[in-house]
Amino acid sequence: MELAVEVLMITTGGSRIAILSEESASLLGVHSSDRIRLVYGKQELIAIANIAPYFPKNRIGLYTETVQALGVKEAETVNVTLAPLPESLYNVRAKLHGERLREQDMVTIVKDVVERHLSTVEIAGFLTALSIHGLSTSENEALSRAMVATGKTLNFGAGPILDKHSVGGIPGDKTSMLVVPIVAAAGYTIPKTSSRAITSPAGTADRVETLCPVNLSINEIQATVAKTGGCLVWGGSLELAPADDLFIQVEYPLGIDPMLLPSILSKKKAIGATHVAIDIPTGMGAKIKTRTEAYTLASDFVDLGKRLGLNIQCALTFGDQPLGCGIGPALEAREALATLMGDGPPDLRDKAISLAGMLFEMVGCEDGQAKAEEMLSSGKAEEKLREIIAAQGGNPKVQPEDLPVGPEHVEVRSERAGKVIWLSTEDIVRVAREAGAPKEKGAGLVLHSKLGETVHKGSVLFEIYAERSSKLASALELASQLSPVVLTTKPAEKMVLDRVPEKLTHEKAFSLDR
Amino acid sequence: MELAVEVLMITTGGSRIAILSEESASLLGVHSSDRIRLVYGKQELIAIANIAPYFPKNRIGLYTETVQALGVKEAETVNVTLAPLPESLYNVRAKLHGERLREQDMVTIVKDVVERHLSTVEIAGFLTALSIHGLSTSENEALSRAMVATGKTLNFGAGPILDKHSVGGIPGDKTSMLVVPIVAAAGYTIPKTSSRAITSPAGTADRVETLCPVNLSINEIQATVAKTGGCLVWGGSLELAPADDLFIQVEYPLGIDPMLLPSILSKKKAIGATHVAIDIPTGMGAKIKTRTEAYTLASDFVDLGKRLGLNIQCALTFGDQPLGCGIGPALEAREALATLMGDGPPDLRDKAISLAGMLFEMVGCEDGQAKAEEMLSSGKAEEKLREIIAAQGGNPKVQPEDLPVGPEHVEVRSERAGKVIWLSTEDIVRVAREAGAPKEKGAGLVLHSKLGETVHKGSVLFEIYAERSSKLASALELASQLSPVVLTTKPAEKMVLDRVPEKLTHEKAFSLDR
Repeated sequence: MELAVEVLMITTGGSRIAILSEESASLLGVHSSDRIRLVYGKQELIAIANIAPYFPKNRIGLYTETVQALGVKEAETVNVTLAPLPESLYNVRAKLHGERLREQDMVTIVKDVVERHLSTVEIAGFLTALSIHGLSTSENEALSRAMVATGKTLNFGAGPILDKHSVGGIPGDKTSMLVVPIVAAAGYTIPKTSSRAITSPAGTADRVETLCPVNLSINEIQATVAKTGGCLVWGGSLELAPADDLFIQVEYPLGIDPMLLPSILSKKKAIGATHVAIDIPTGMGAKIKTRTEAYTLASDFVDLGKRLGLNIQCALTFGDQPLGCGIGPALEAREALATLMGDGPPDLRDKAISLAGMLFEMVGCEDGQAKAEEMLSSGKAEEKLREIIAAQGGNPKVQPEDLPVGPEHVEVRSERAGKVIWLSTEDIVRVAREAGAPKEKGAGLVLHSKLGETVHKGSVLFEIYAERSSKLASALELASQLSPVVLTTKPAEKMVLDRVPEKLTHEKAFSLDR
Repeated sequence: MELAVEVLMITTGGSRIAILSEESASLLGVHSSDRIRLVYGKQELIAIANIAPYFPKNRIGLYTETVQALGVKEAETVNVTLAPLPESLYNVRAKLHGERLREQDMVTIVKDVVERHLSTVEIAGFLTALSIHGLSTSENEALSRAMVATGKTLNFGAGPILDKHSVGGIPGDKTSMLVVPIVAAAGYTIPKTSSRAITSPAGTADRVETLCPVNLSINEIQATVAKTGGCLVWGGSLELAPADDLFIQVEYPLGIDPMLLPSILSKKKAIGATHVAIDIPTGMGAKIKTRTEAYTLASDFVDLGKRLGLNIQCALTFGDQPLGCGIGPALEAREALATLMGDGPPDLRDKAISLAGMLFEMVGCEDGQAKAEEMLSSGKAEEKLREIIAAQGGNPKVQPEDLPVGPEHVEVRSERAGKVIWLSTEDIVRVAREAGAPKEKGAGLVLHSKLGETVHKGSVLFEIYAERSSKLASALELASQLSPVVLTTKPAEKMVLDRVPEKLTHEKAFSLDR
């Protein structure tokens, strides 16, 4: 059927969609989400049909991407026919019915996701099915390899190439900002790419961005690593495993995260890592709640790593409270820098030394902890971070207090004395985000009391920082509704931590930061 | 944040979507698929945010529905803030994690589906989870009730109100066109609404449309039923259980049908049925392949019916081959009319009498079969169909041969002698659709040989009808590639029916017609 093009001046960034009237669709035997073949001269492509009730007949609506791909102009005609469904969609359907997919099946799916041949509805069905049925190690391997193959890769020469990753879930975790300079200071290569926050108050890229640019090109990254041995950059625009970015867009509204393993390891593989330390924060306040879950995940990481040619060790770390005291991009960067300069909270220091030490031992060092400790206390790690800051285009002389934090500021004080028995990471995340983090980089929280510490009546529990007074007020109000810090005077005196409303609610926090 | 409206001149018919630039979204803390509140003067509504990479900053793109709902004009500003996620989405997520949903949870979901507050991605996640986890009877009941409550309902006065439904899956099943006049001829009320074909060569609405209009308003339906006791109309535009239409749009690409029970029974409930006969074609060629599956489904129908106050009986019917000989809208209508006039295939006659008889017995008749037989052979059923045709605006004097069938026509002959041991309904459906059915009403197939029948070398296996020679040619080519009719000369002589290609394919036919 010949239809005249109506150019829709929108760049959807999504699937190739063509809009048909009900009449044309019916004549073509096309239902919404069927595939149609568009032919214009020698150009031809497949689009997904959307049927719009009041769309003019004899017209086909095309978004700018499709118009450009065809090279067609407004009101010119294209030939439209019903096209068969892509093989990848049959593979998606097989997964919906619980079948195991083979490597080749996963390749068709990932390829069609990246090339936008599968609609978001189809991707949603696929990810939901993966979330419910789970993935075999072979499926995880196939997905990881397909995700690497459909993206760009980096090459830092002969190894070992070290890396560190946290599966995420506890606020204030700025360990990467310490591990990278500690490892690089010892002469190893550690090209760290990180993400921005999705559901948390700060991602590593958000934190580092308060010190220097993180949005580097692949060439700039290669130069930084060649000069300093390390980098701390945003991975989001590098097109490493780009399928994952498309998966995340669907996982986010659905609150599912079935691709955790292939998502993380495909990115490690794409940057050419050979040795990876994976941090699995475990505890009530983390993404992984129990030790059993953590051990299972850890052995899955190790197994999948072996199949992908990655040497992996996992650390199960204490995940019942935030790490350190600062929460929010600038407050966390201040704390990381201060810790490298010799003045930081003990939990952050311990975690950074332990993870860096683990990496050192993975590449043959006998006492990794001691080596990491030395890099930190000698000031070599601080010096290395300043080199990296300079190489990425920041000021290497920056001091913690140079990083601007929100001018609006309030102290939340305790109404009673007691010992801290519970810190709700979920509540702390909500308050920090309400204050403006991660977008407003100076916003966030500073904790003055952590688990087990004694608090007097009137002492400061935490401070809230914001860049705008309205945000400060609403964060303060939220903090007073929630109970981020729970106190007791005697053990067992306060057994009820919280009361669930009589009306059961399905509303639960969902964390997608990896 | 204040943003200027850019009116996007498209009626999506879908969710309320607002397009934001990456910059505005980031400042608002909004990710794609988050909800935003739009305020314009005293008007306010919630839309789903889509983030477009190259959308102009300081602008918000709104589709025509949203523009009309707000009463805003191009370039005027609206106030935009991040809104909380709807409760229904938390309920969807709970189902993804395998939780059972309560009645109130289902109500929030169905309501938000109908009001377009859930995106197609979210609906896809929900339906996939239902498809994998299954639904409890309570969940089916809650869904059915919610689907009835969110749509229109019909009232035909004091009962009994009879109805008949097939779960579908075998081609050529024109039984409703006989059951309705048989039942109405006996003085009962049977207001039958039907669907058009989605994946089959003809739905009841497509068949009846060759005799008279089927797209009647609710008032016209009431008048037809008041006059004749019955009707045969298209249910698609009546807004009975409209949630189902939106579910089907997502089920179709995913090839899943988790809503079968609530979808069918909500529509029966909405038209006020009290007694329903459900036909479950069972066999290799039907949607339901095994007796075990059929018995389970049948008892689910009966149980759910009880909870909804519907008296239900199910018939498991022979589903290994098409019903009758004609396949395609006009060819099937011809056959139905001929059968009412005393001249039709025995399987169609038997099925119509059996199902009508079952309905008669459900409302207290002692020998329903005899009563149905009498209505048919006396000509009263034929007379009743002609009354219904007249009441719906068709020609009551129509003869079978008056219904135009495709002028293009070919006979497919057997290359050998033998007995028919297999008729592939799936292949027959593909050939009929390739010939143009259901859109081209005169297209389709006429079978000349059915299971167990003897065929000579050169005898006609089936005829193909089409309205256009190009369609006839491609249907004929498809028929020669497939093996719709499989012959044997001695039992057990031909044990291999088909050989699966060495390369395993996940491509399977999916039937969504109910």
